[in-house]
Amino acid sequence: MKVNREYLNLKKSYLFSEIAKRVSEFEEKHPEAKIIRLGIGDVTLPLVPEVIDSMHRAVDDMSKKETFKGYPPEHGQDFLVEKIEKFDYKDRGLDISKDEIFVSDGAKSDTGNILDIFDKDNIVAVCDPIYPVYVDTNIMAGRDGQIIYLETSQENGFSPNLPNRKVDIIYLCSPNNPTGTTMDRNTLKKFVDYANEYDSILLFDSAYEAFITDDNLPKSIYEIPGAKNCAIEFRSFSKTAGFTGVRCGYTVVPKDLKRDSISLNELWARRQATKFNGVSYVTQRAAEAVYSEKGRKQVEENINYYLNNAKTIAKGLESIGIKYYGAENSPYIWFKVPEKFDSWSFFDYLLENANIVGTPGVGFGKMGEGYFRLTGFSDADSTKEAVDRIKKLSF
Amino acid sequence: MKVNREYLNLKKSYLFSEIAKRVSEFEEKHPEAKIIRLGIGDVTLPLVPEVIDSMHRAVDDMSKKETFKGYPPEHGQDFLVEKIEKFDYKDRGLDISKDEIFVSDGAKSDTGNILDIFDKDNIVAVCDPIYPVYVDTNIMAGRDGQIIYLETSQENGFSPNLPNRKVDIIYLCSPNNPTGTTMDRNTLKKFVDYANEYDSILLFDSAYEAFITDDNLPKSIYEIPGAKNCAIEFRSFSKTAGFTGVRCGYTVVPKDLKRDSISLNELWARRQATKFNGVSYVTQRAAEAVYSEKGRKQVEENINYYLNNAKTIAKGLESIGIKYYGAENSPYIWFKVPEKFDSWSFFDYLLENANIVGTPGVGFGKMGEGYFRLTGFSDADSTKEAVDRIKKLSF
Repeated sequence: MKVNREYLNLKKSYLFSEIAKRVSEFEEKHPEAKIIRLGIGDVTLPLVPEVIDSMHRAVDDMSKKETFKGYPPEHGQDFLVEKIEKFDYKDRGLDISKDEIFVSDGAKSDTGNILDIFDKDNIVAVCDPIYPVYVDTNIMAGRDGQIIYLETSQENGFSPNLPNRKVDIIYLCSPNNPTGTTMDRNTLKKFVDYANEYDSILLFDSAYEAFITDDNLPKSIYEIPGAKNCAIEFRSFSKTAGFTGVRCGYTVVPKDLKRDSISLNELWARRQATKFNGVSYVTQRAAEAVYSEKGRKQVEENINYYLNNAKTIAKGLESIGIKYYGAENSPYIWFKVPEKFDSWSFFDYLLENANIVGTPGVGFGKMGEGYFRLTGFSDADSTKEAVDRIKKLSF
Repeated sequence: MKVNREYLNLKKSYLFSEIAKRVSEFEEKHPEAKIIRLGIGDVTLPLVPEVIDSMHRAVDDMSKKETFKGYPPEHGQDFLVEKIEKFDYKDRGLDISKDEIFVSDGAKSDTGNILDIFDKDNIVAVCDPIYPVYVDTNIMAGRDGQIIYLETSQENGFSPNLPNRKVDIIYLCSPNNPTGTTMDRNTLKKFVDYANEYDSILLFDSAYEAFITDDNLPKSIYEIPGAKNCAIEFRSFSKTAGFTGVRCGYTVVPKDLKRDSISLNELWARRQATKFNGVSYVTQRAAEAVYSEKGRKQVEENINYYLNNAKTIAKGLESIGIKYYGAENSPYIWFKVPEKFDSWSFFDYLLENANIVGTPGVGFGKMGEGYFRLTGFSDADSTKEAVDRIKKLSF
């Protein structure tokens, strides 16, 4: 019996455990300190009333024989898939249909599991810095040594350039985690054209699309002509509607997307039908409520609350001369740490002198060294208090 | 870009779609027929009151900032893992601890995803007939041609014999789907001893353990000495507590389980932390309630209801001289179709002459040809009515 030894090539994932360790050591020494956490990518506002009501009704459905639901369809309940089709695509002029939408328990599962349908020998491109899961899942699948890094930095405004060699699979995340930057129409078009020229596949992670307020920025890759021939899109209710603890997302695999005359839509449909058993009925009713008239308004208010927090942080940094990325169209604020620091020494400095927890940029890749991430996901008062503390620091 | 061409080796999965097609054609011709469905493996009773109350409370938790839950721990909430540890293991004298238990969205996901941690080159053994997902997930992972079938039949009482060659991974399902047979202590011990001798891994699917009423039959593989060195166990709340639409299960990977000095517990922990983001909070609170005093009683009543249905069918078959397997310690009844039929022609005969839908045994593997599966998951009145209709048939 041989284990999958590719796992031995993984770096120990220590970013958030190292943060937790340093914070708890600090707390032990300074039990009086009022720590403000701006490091997490998790939401803090409760679910909106429309979603709560819908979940209660769904629980009641499960209590009566007449309305009880057993195994859900592996690809999502019609009542939810129809809403996704209408509100996220058709109403925005995008021709995506129900059988191209696959509801799941979240974008993290899907961005990892999608690799099941690709051959091991493909060359993969990921941005640096980036969400570490893209890299780790490829190493697990045996692609260590086949990963190309599209480096982003202040020079390219943390927006990736095209690969300078042929690659087979390209991950794009817009709005980006951790840099908060968004890709505009022209940049996305370059990637779509590249993919169609080289028969590559784009894996487009738009988990943060709800934070886009600028109408000129694309929320879906399918706004770009030709994308249905080369792109898979991942969406999540986690940030859109605060569903991190509810677990729902979806993946779009267009029927036009084929390689070697093989339909990727059919491969993914088979993968999900074989290795997944659908999403909790209560969760799917929760997601459905996000699309009701009231639901959409309530969810938008929460998004604006987080965006305001991000702007509060951004303004504070600006007022002390720190250049930042993100905060607009994104809950993340990404900035270069002052001269004398690197990512981790700035983490320590901020924790010790302002009792603020952020995330060292180097945790997202080597190009993140010297950078730092703060988030708008805390509450408004704490965020303001944090900014006041930062302003008082001398760098 | 190359797709995973292993998917092309999959047989078209047509069992349940073919059943649905034949039933709907029959319904079109005979709209007056009162069809009774004894083919499904899905539950029909609503969730028990303790579970419903717990879910409502959990939804309320999600509505308030103070009790809102964001990202769940990838391996399960403590409140649930502690209950599993106590009630399913410690209280039964089994030394399984919290960090060996991984909560998930269901056993189907886990039995498929577990293959991520094994090398492609392993030889796999599965019983025939069997749950088709074991075979399909291995074909997807590139093991077509490396699958050995442990044939079961009336000769061995539908209980598998040891492989007659060295294999690396062995799937066991007890109580078995579709045959309804359970493996006794001696049989399981043979497999555990075999696995420990040859360094094989047992994948023990005990999704139906709640149906075991005979105290002499093991509910967990860890009741067998040595199993912690060779076995992974899959459990599900789907049949135990009617959670097919709620989505919760768990997998046990003992810390003693190592190959090439590599801990499989650590590999699975890393797999889940990287490619999975935990189970819905509401679902985990639902599962927790299954272990409350009232919850256990209520759930047991439902299990007994399904077992009674199974016994009703079994007695009916017996009264007309048909030998069956299962129905005790299992919701499934498996029997040889009368002489002149094969699995599918008996399906048609039963549908046309008694308006009963069952499942052709051949859908579970070639050794299932000439057999048929009925289930106890329908309601009691329909089940009795179905048996009356079967008794009136002439074979």
